[in-house]
Amino acid sequence: MPLFDLPLADLRRYTPAVAEPADFDDFWSATLAETRGHALAPVFEPVDIGLELVEVFDVTFAGWAGEPVRGWFMAPAGRPGPLPCVVQFQGYGGGRGLPHQWLYWANAGYAHLFMDTRGQGSGWSVGHTPDPAGSAPAHPGFMTRGIEDPETYYYRRVFADGVRAVEAARAHPRVDPERVAVTGVSQGGGITIAVSGLVPDVAAAMPDVPFLCDFPRAIQITPKDPYTEIVRYLTVQRDKVEAVMRTLSYFDGVSFARRAAAPALFSVGLMDMTCPPSTVYAAFNSYAGADKSIIEYPFNNHEGGGAFQEREQLNWLRARK
Amino acid sequence: MPLFDLPLADLRRYTPAVAEPADFDDFWSATLAETRGHALAPVFEPVDIGLELVEVFDVTFAGWAGEPVRGWFMAPAGRPGPLPCVVQFQGYGGGRGLPHQWLYWANAGYAHLFMDTRGQGSGWSVGHTPDPAGSAPAHPGFMTRGIEDPETYYYRRVFADGVRAVEAARAHPRVDPERVAVTGVSQGGGITIAVSGLVPDVAAAMPDVPFLCDFPRAIQITPKDPYTEIVRYLTVQRDKVEAVMRTLSYFDGVSFARRAAAPALFSVGLMDMTCPPSTVYAAFNSYAGADKSIIEYPFNNHEGGGAFQEREQLNWLRARK
Amino acid sequence: MPLFDLPLADLRRYTPAVAEPADFDDFWSATLAETRGHALAPVFEPVDIGLELVEVFDVTFAGWAGEPVRGWFMAPAGRPGPLPCVVQFQGYGGGRGLPHQWLYWANAGYAHLFMDTRGQGSGWSVGHTPDPAGSAPAHPGFMTRGIEDPETYYYRRVFADGVRAVEAARAHPRVDPERVAVTGVSQGGGITIAVSGLVPDVAAAMPDVPFLCDFPRAIQITPKDPYTEIVRYLTVQRDKVEAVMRTLSYFDGVSFARRAAAPALFSVGLMDMTCPPSTVYAAFNSYAGADKSIIEYPFNNHEGGGAFQEREQLNWLRARK
Amino acid sequence: MPLFDLPLADLRRYTPAVAEPADFDDFWSATLAETRGHALAPVFEPVDIGLELVEVFDVTFAGWAGEPVRGWFMAPAGRPGPLPCVVQFQGYGGGRGLPHQWLYWANAGYAHLFMDTRGQGSGWSVGHTPDPAGSAPAHPGFMTRGIEDPETYYYRRVFADGVRAVEAARAHPRVDPERVAVTGVSQGGGITIAVSGLVPDVAAAMPDVPFLCDFPRAIQITPKDPYTEIVRYLTVQRDKVEAVMRTLSYFDGVSFARRAAAPALFSVGLMDMTCPPSTVYAAFNSYAGADKSIIEYPFNNHEGGGAFQEREQLNWLRARK
Amino acid sequence: MPLFDLPLADLRRYTPAVAEPADFDDFWSATLAETRGHALAPVFEPVDIGLELVEVFDVTFAGWAGEPVRGWFMAPAGRPGPLPCVVQFQGYGGGRGLPHQWLYWANAGYAHLFMDTRGQGSGWSVGHTPDPAGSAPAHPGFMTRGIEDPETYYYRRVFADGVRAVEAARAHPRVDPERVAVTGVSQGGGITIAVSGLVPDVAAAMPDVPFLCDFPRAIQITPKDPYTEIVRYLTVQRDKVEAVMRTLSYFDGVSFARRAAAPALFSVGLMDMTCPPSTVYAAFNSYAGADKSIIEYPFNNHEGGGAFQEREQLNWLRARK
Amino acid sequence: MPLFDLPLADLRRYTPAVAEPADFDDFWSATLAETRGHALAPVFEPVDIGLELVEVFDVTFAGWAGEPVRGWFMAPAGRPGPLPCVVQFQGYGGGRGLPHQWLYWANAGYAHLFMDTRGQGSGWSVGHTPDPAGSAPAHPGFMTRGIEDPETYYYRRVFADGVRAVEAARAHPRVDPERVAVTGVSQGGGITIAVSGLVPDVAAAMPDVPFLCDFPRAIQITPKDPYTEIVRYLTVQRDKVEAVMRTLSYFDGVSFARRAAAPALFSVGLMDMTCPPSTVYAAFNSYAGADKSIIEYPFNNHEGGGAFQEREQLNWLRARK
Repeated sequence: MPLFDLPLADLRRYTPAVAEPADFDDFWSATLAETRGHALAPVFEPVDIGLELVEVFDVTFAGWAGEPVRGWFMAPAGRPGPLPCVVQFQGYGGGRGLPHQWLYWANAGYAHLFMDTRGQGSGWSVGHTPDPAGSAPAHPGFMTRGIEDPETYYYRRVFADGVRAVEAARAHPRVDPERVAVTGVSQGGGITIAVSGLVPDVAAAMPDVPFLCDFPRAIQITPKDPYTEIVRYLTVQRDKVEAVMRTLSYFDGVSFARRAAAPALFSVGLMDMTCPPSTVYAAFNSYAGADKSIIEYPFNNHEGGGAFQEREQLNWLRARK
Repeated sequence: MPLFDLPLADLRRYTPAVAEPADFDDFWSATLAETRGHALAPVFEPVDIGLELVEVFDVTFAGWAGEPVRGWFMAPAGRPGPLPCVVQFQGYGGGRGLPHQWLYWANAGYAHLFMDTRGQGSGWSVGHTPDPAGSAPAHPGFMTRGIEDPETYYYRRVFADGVRAVEAARAHPRVDPERVAVTGVSQGGGITIAVSGLVPDVAAAMPDVPFLCDFPRAIQITPKDPYTEIVRYLTVQRDKVEAVMRTLSYFDGVSFARRAAAPALFSVGLMDMTCPPSTVYAAFNSYAGADKSIIEYPFNNHEGGGAFQEREQLNWLRARK
Repeated sequence: MPLFDLPLADLRRYTPAVAEPADFDDFWSATLAETRGHALAPVFEPVDIGLELVEVFDVTFAGWAGEPVRGWFMAPAGRPGPLPCVVQFQGYGGGRGLPHQWLYWANAGYAHLFMDTRGQGSGWSVGHTPDPAGSAPAHPGFMTRGIEDPETYYYRRVFADGVRAVEAARAHPRVDPERVAVTGVSQGGGITIAVSGLVPDVAAAMPDVPFLCDFPRAIQITPKDPYTEIVRYLTVQRDKVEAVMRTLSYFDGVSFARRAAAPALFSVGLMDMTCPPSTVYAAFNSYAGADKSIIEYPFNNHEGGGAFQEREQLNWLRARK
Repeated sequence: MPLFDLPLADLRRYTPAVAEPADFDDFWSATLAETRGHALAPVFEPVDIGLELVEVFDVTFAGWAGEPVRGWFMAPAGRPGPLPCVVQFQGYGGGRGLPHQWLYWANAGYAHLFMDTRGQGSGWSVGHTPDPAGSAPAHPGFMTRGIEDPETYYYRRVFADGVRAVEAARAHPRVDPERVAVTGVSQGGGITIAVSGLVPDVAAAMPDVPFLCDFPRAIQITPKDPYTEIVRYLTVQRDKVEAVMRTLSYFDGVSFARRAAAPALFSVGLMDMTCPPSTVYAAFNSYAGADKSIIEYPFNNHEGGGAFQEREQLNWLRARK
Repeated sequence: MPLFDLPLADLRRYTPAVAEPADFDDFWSATLAETRGHALAPVFEPVDIGLELVEVFDVTFAGWAGEPVRGWFMAPAGRPGPLPCVVQFQGYGGGRGLPHQWLYWANAGYAHLFMDTRGQGSGWSVGHTPDPAGSAPAHPGFMTRGIEDPETYYYRRVFADGVRAVEAARAHPRVDPERVAVTGVSQGGGITIAVSGLVPDVAAAMPDVPFLCDFPRAIQITPKDPYTEIVRYLTVQRDKVEAVMRTLSYFDGVSFARRAAAPALFSVGLMDMTCPPSTVYAAFNSYAGADKSIIEYPFNNHEGGGAFQEREQLNWLRARK
Repeated sequence: MPLFDLPLADLRRYTPAVAEPADFDDFWSATLAETRGHALAPVFEPVDIGLELVEVFDVTFAGWAGEPVRGWFMAPAGRPGPLPCVVQFQGYGGGRGLPHQWLYWANAGYAHLFMDTRGQGSGWSVGHTPDPAGSAPAHPGFMTRGIEDPETYYYRRVFADGVRAVEAARAHPRVDPERVAVTGVSQGGGITIAVSGLVPDVAAAMPDVPFLCDFPRAIQITPKDPYTEIVRYLTVQRDKVEAVMRTLSYFDGVSFARRAAAPALFSVGLMDMTCPPSTVYAAFNSYAGADKSIIEYPFNNHEGGGAFQEREQLNWLRARK
C-alpha cells in the first residue's frame, strides 16, 4: 500500500480541532459513577494450563452496569510482589484467547491482566464475555451498536470496562497499584488512550497503532474496516449523520488524549490504511502528558511494529517503572 | 457462477434426514406461549407519504418478549375490506425501508403488512426495530447471536415476531383473517417457512429462494455469507461445534416445512451460491402441504426470479385466494 | 470508500470550462429534425398484470431513425386527467423491467412513462428495445459504440429517444403536456439532463447522481465502470484519443445543463466513485435554470439517496406541479 | 487453479450427445449461399511497415452480407509461390492488431492471412472491422448479440466471415488453394472448427484451446467469461432459456467437428477454466477427420501451450503440407 | 470456505500409493552423510531481551553444506536440566522472528529450539539465515528453487538443516537427548514429518496441518499458494513436468511418514484449502509409528487449531515425555 | 485506473534530487572490471526452429562473475552484414522465451540479441539462465535478493550481464559494433537505462515504460508489484530501511540516466500504476543525452504503447541508424 495520508512533516504537526461536547467530562463522570455504583468484586480463579514459570488466573470483575467482564491474570510463579503490572486491551473482533498466548509481560517480571472485550471474541481470537445490551438496527460489527445516542453507544460500556480492569489489577495483592501501565494494539490502543484520559494516574500508556481517534477524519479517508462500518451504516441510515457525529464526539481518542497525563509511548504505521497515520498523530499531538514519544514504522500498514514494538515497549517501560 | 450443487434430478428428490430434537414442538409451543403472554397491542398509525391510491400505516405490535416490532401496513385507499392480506418478511441485513418501496400487493388489491426484522436494517435497507437482547461473543452479523443455546438464539426472537406479524395482520379490521398469506425472499423466505410451520392455518406460503434450511449441509457447501458466519464463528469457537449444531436443529426450515399445511409456491435458483438449491429443495421436498409447487430459475444465482417471481406469485395467489 | 474527489467547498463552486464544439446546437437541431422526420406514432397497448389501482400500458413510439422504442405507461385507474406526468429514464445496463416495479409515481397521482433504453436491458433489469445500429470495434458495453464520430455515437440515438419519450407522454390524452417532468438515476440522470437541455420547456428535471457529465474529468478520476469503458477503449485504440474527446464534447451533460431552463432537483453522493461528485457538480453548477437545488448524501457511494431521494422528489415536485 | 473438470480418462472419451437441429445443414447452406451472393472482391493493399523480409498487405474482402472484413496478409518477400497458406482467427475481444505482431508463419515460408473479427478489437488488440448489425438487448460483449434467433446471432456473421477468409486466401495468386490451413486460439479455435466443418477441404485445422464447443455443458461448469456472458444474460432474460439453447445448437463446435475432414491438431489445457477441457474434448472426440491429434498441457489454464504450441503446429504442419 | 475435498469417511482411510524412487533411502543417506561431513559446531550465544523467567540464546549450527543456520534456544531460567526439548520449525515464508514470540514451551518447563528456515523470513516473520545457493529459473517463492533435480532442490537443504537442528538441541548440556520432540505448523509440520522419517528416534512428532505431503494430489486440487507455485512454474516450464514430479518424489511427506517411528500427534483442518485434508491424511495414514492420533478441526481452514492445538500438544506431550 | 500521479505539466518537469553515493562510479567501475576479468567467450549455436527468413542462434556469453548468460541471436537469413543490431532486455519475471516470439527486428533488417534475465523465466515467459547466487532472507521475487548490500544486490549481476550482452552483440561478425542499440519494456527498460549509463557509446536507447527508476518515490506511491516487494520486505525487516535505501541508491535509473549519452526514445503510460509516470519522467528528465524524446500514452496503464510503441521505435531508429 502506498503512502496515502498527509506528508510526514504535516503528520508530525497535525493537531485537528476535534469538537468536544460541553458535557464531555460530565458524561464520563456520570458513566464512571454509575459503573462504580456496582461492587468491583474481582475474582481471580487459578487455572492450570501446564505452565511452570507463570501462574495463571481466570479473572472476572464487574464492568459497565456491574456486568461480569472476563480476563486473564498472569504473574511470575512464586513472586509475591508487589509487582508492576501491565493491563492490556485487545484488538477489534478478538477476545482474550487462551492464556498461553500472552506470556511476554509475565516473563519480563510483570503482573499482566489481559481484558476480554465484551461481545467480541468470535472474529479471530476466542472471547468469553457477553455484551448483554442489545441495540437499535446496527451494521454488522460493533462500531454502530447504539450509535444513535452516547448513552447507548457500545464503547461507553467498553471504556467503562477498561477503567474497571485497571481497578481490578490494582486490587490484586501482588500488584503495586502505583505501577499499573495500560497498553493495546489498534482497538486495544484506542481503549488505552481512553483509559489514560479517564484514569490519569496510570503509570504509563503504550498505545500501538491506536484506533478510535479523530473520527471525523478517519471515516472520510480510510476505505478499510472497521471505521467503514460507520460509513456503511450512514449509507443506509442517511438521516442519522448528525446524531452519529454527536455520539462519536464523546468517544474520540483525541479528547481523551487531551486529558491524559501518564508517560506514553505510541507507535504508528505510515502506510496504515486501517488506522491512518493522521488519526494516530491527532491523538499523539493532542496527548497532554509531557513524557511522550512515538515510533514510526515507515513502510508498515496496520500490522505496525508487531514484535519489534513489543521489544521497544519493554525497554521503554523498564526505564520508567 | 457454475452449477456446483447436486444434479437437477437429485435435487428434485433430495430429502435429507435433518435431525430434530425430541422437544422441538415443546420448545416452540413454549416460545409462542411466552410471546403471547404479552398483549399483541397492534398500533396502526396512518402516515402521509404523498400517495393517493394506497393508505399507509406505521405498524407497531408486540413481538418476542412483548418488545415492539415495527412494520408498514398498506391497503388500497378507500376499500373497507375484508381484504386478503400478504405478510412479507425481509431479506438478511435489510429493514422495512420506506413504505413506497412496497406498493405491489396493495396495488393488486391486497392488504399488505411488511415486517421489520429486529436489529437489522442498517445493511442495505433501513430498519427501525431494535433487538434489545445482547449476546455472548458472536461473529459480526446476526447468524451467531446467542447461538450457544436455543433459548437465546437470535432467530427464536425473529420467528416469534413473524408469528405475531400474522396475528397483527389478522387483527386489522380490513383484513380477512382467513386469507392471510406469508412471503419473503431469502431470509424472508426462511421466516415464511418457519411461520408456515408454526401457524399452519395461514392461507398460503410463498418462500422465495429461502434461507435457513438444512443447516448441516448449507454450512458445508456454500462459500458465501451469511451461512458462513456460522463457519467463521466455529473457526474461532472451536469447542462449540456440538452446541451450535444442537441449537440450529431447533431452527431448521426443513423441520418447519414438515409441519406446514398451507398451499405453497417456492422458488429456487439452480446456481444460487448463497442459498444452495439442495437446501431449498430440502425444505420443499419436506413440505407437508399437499398443494405445493416450485419454480426453478436454471441460470440464476441468489437473485432468483426477482420481479418475474413476483409476477408468478400474484397469478398463483389469485388462483387460490 | 473514502472521500476521493475535491473538498466539499470546492465541489460546490466547481464549474469546469468543458469545451463545446461550435456546431453543438446545429448538431442537435439536425439530430432532432431528422428524428422528427419520422412520425412519432405512439401506441399504448393496455396490459393486465393483475393490478387494480393503476392501469398499465405497453408503450411503443418512434425514436431515433423512426425505430421503435418501448416503455411502460401507467396511470391511476379510472382518472381521466389531465394528469401531470413523470418521464423516467433507466440506469446503465438496465431495461424497462416489469411494470409492477415502477408503481411510485402512479400511486402518487401522476401519469408515468418509463422508457426502455435501446440495446440495454440484459445486464440487471430486463429490456425489450433493440438497437438496430451496429458499430465499429467497440469495448464491451455501450459507452464506446460509434464513439469515433458524433454522428454514430450510441448516445445520439438514446438522447433522441429521450426527447421522443417526452413527446409521446405529451401525446397521451390523459397527460397535461404542460406538466411533464423528467427524471432518472445515474444514466437516467444523464438522459434527464440531456433532455432538459434539448426540451427546455419540460416542467421539471430531477437528475439523481447523474452520469455522462464532465467527461474529460470523469475518465481521468474514476476507476469504475462505465466511464472506464472509454479508458479501456483508449488503451487499445491508442490513436483515437482526439476523435473520442471530440465526440464526447457533443454529449456532455455540462453543455446540456447550460441550455436547460426547468426547475431542477439534483442529488449527489459525496463518496460516489462511479459518478464522482465533481462531475455531478459540474452539471449542477452549469445548470441554467434559476430554480435549482441539490441534495448531498455525504457518505453514500453511487447508490446515492435511493428511496430517500424518491421521497424528496415527490415532495419537491408536488410543491411545483 | 486446480483440476475441476472430469478426470483425464473420462475426458479422453467424453463424447456428449450435443443436440443438433434437423435443419442444421440447411441453415448453414443458406447462410453461405446468401453470403456468396455478394462478390468476394478481395483487395490486397500493400503497406510499408518497415519490414524487409516479408511483404504485408492490408486485406479487405466481402464477408457476411457483403460487408467488408479486414485482415492482414503476409508472405515472404520476393517469393512468387504458390505458397501454402495459414488463415488465422483471433481470440475473443481482440482485433487483427498491427501486422508486425504476426510474423511467424511468413518467416516459416507460408503465406498468412490474419482475419479481423467484426466488431471486436477494442478489448486488448486493436481491430478495424465494423459489425454493422445491431441487436436486441444483449449483455455487454458479443456472446448474446442476436442470440434470440439463429438468423440474427452474432456468430452466424463471424463464421460466414471465416469461410470467406479462406476463400480470400485461396484467391490470392501467391497461394496454393489446395494448401490452405486454418488455425486460431480460443475463439480463434472455435472459428477454426466451424470453418473446418463448413469448408471440409481445407488442408489442415489447428484449433488451440478452442472456445464455442459443447455450449450446454460449458455454460453450466465454467465461472469465467466469456461463456458466462450467456449465463448472465439468462439471469435477466429469464424467459429466453429455450430460445437461447435453440440458437446455440446451430453454432456448437461439436456439430461442426462432426462434419470436418481435414487433418487436425488440437490443444487443451487441463486446468483451463475459460474453455474447460471437457468442452475441448467434446469437439476433439467428435471430430470426423481421421488424422487428428491433441496435445495436453496438464497444468495450464487458458493460456494453454502458448509459444510451445506454435512450435508444435509448425512441426506438425510441415509434416503434412 | 466449503468442504471441497473427499468426504470425511474417505479421508480417514485415504492412503495413496505415492510413488517412491528406488534410491530414496540412498539419496537421503548420502545427503545426511554429506551434511554431517561438516562439524555441527553449535554455538549458543546468550542474549538479554529483558526476560526474567527464561534464558534466551541465539543459536548457530552448521546445516546443509556446513552453512550456518540460525535459531533461538530458550530454557527456564536457572534450571540445569536435563530437560526435555521441543524443536520447532517455521511456516512458509516466515523466519525465526524475535525470541519473545516463542515462550510457550520454555514456560511449560521444556528446552526449546526454534529453527530459522534458510532464505525465508522476509514474508511475515523476520529471519536471519541466508540460503547461499542460487538456482535455475524459478517461480517467486521457494517451492521451485532447484526443482529440476533432487540434488539441487531447496527442501534438500532445509530438511538437512532440520536434522541438524535436532542434533544441535541434543548437543546442548541442558537437554536430555532422549527426549527431543519435533513440531511445527504447515511447512513446519512438513519439516517435522521429514525429520521424523530421517531421525526415527526423536521422542515425539507433532505436525500441525502439515504441508509438503502427497504432492501429486496437492498440486491438482488446491487453488492456493504455496503448492500452486509449482503449478504456475509448470505453466511456463511446460517441458519440465516429468522432471518436477521425479524431484518431488524424493521429498514427499508420505514417504517420510512411512519411515517414522515416534509417537505422533497430527492436526488437520477439514476446510483447509492450503494443505487439503486429504494430503494431511495421506501422511497420517501412512505414518508408521504405532502411537499416533490426529485432531480434526471440522470448520477450520489453514489456521487449523491454532492456540487450541498448542494446548492439546502440551497435554499430549506431557503424557509421553 | 484513474490518473493518480502528478499533473501532466508537473510530470514534464519533474526532476527529483535522487541521492547518489559518492562512490557510485567507483562501484560500477569495479563491478565492470571484475566482470570483464572473465573472458566474454560468446558462443552462437545455430538452431533450426523451422524458419526460412531468419537465422537463429542460441547465445551464451559470460556475464557477472563469468557465469553463463543465455539469449537468442537472430539475423536476416543470408545477409553477411555488417548489420545494425538491437539488444533487448526482458520484463520482470520473464525469460528469453522461444526465439520465434521475437522476429520483429530481424524482419526489419537488424541483427537482434534477446538477453535472458538470470534466475527469471518461470513467471510468464520461459527462461534458461540460472542465477547461481543465493541470498539472505528475501521476499519472494527478485527485488530484495541481496538488498542489504550493494555488493550482493541482484541487479548488480543483472546490469553487469546487460553490459556484457552489448559486448557479445558487438563481438558477432555480422554486427556493426558502432550501431548497437538497446531496448526493453519495464524491467527491460530499466536495464536499458542502466546499460546506457554504463556503456555511453551505445548507438541508441529505447526504454519502454521503464522500471527501476526513482526508487524513493516509487516505493511510496505505487500499490503494485514489483516495487511493493521492497515495501513488503521492509514491513518485516523493519530495521533494514536505511541499508535498503543505501543499496538502491547504487541502482537507480535516474543516476544511470545522468550518465547516458545515446539518442533515446522513451515511452510512458500516464495511468501506469506499476511504473508510475513520475518515476519514468524522473529518468527521462535526468537523461543526459541531447537527442531524446518521449511518447505519452495518456490512458494506458503499464501495458503502455505495446505494438504501437514498437512501430514508433522502428521508425525512430531507422531515422538514426
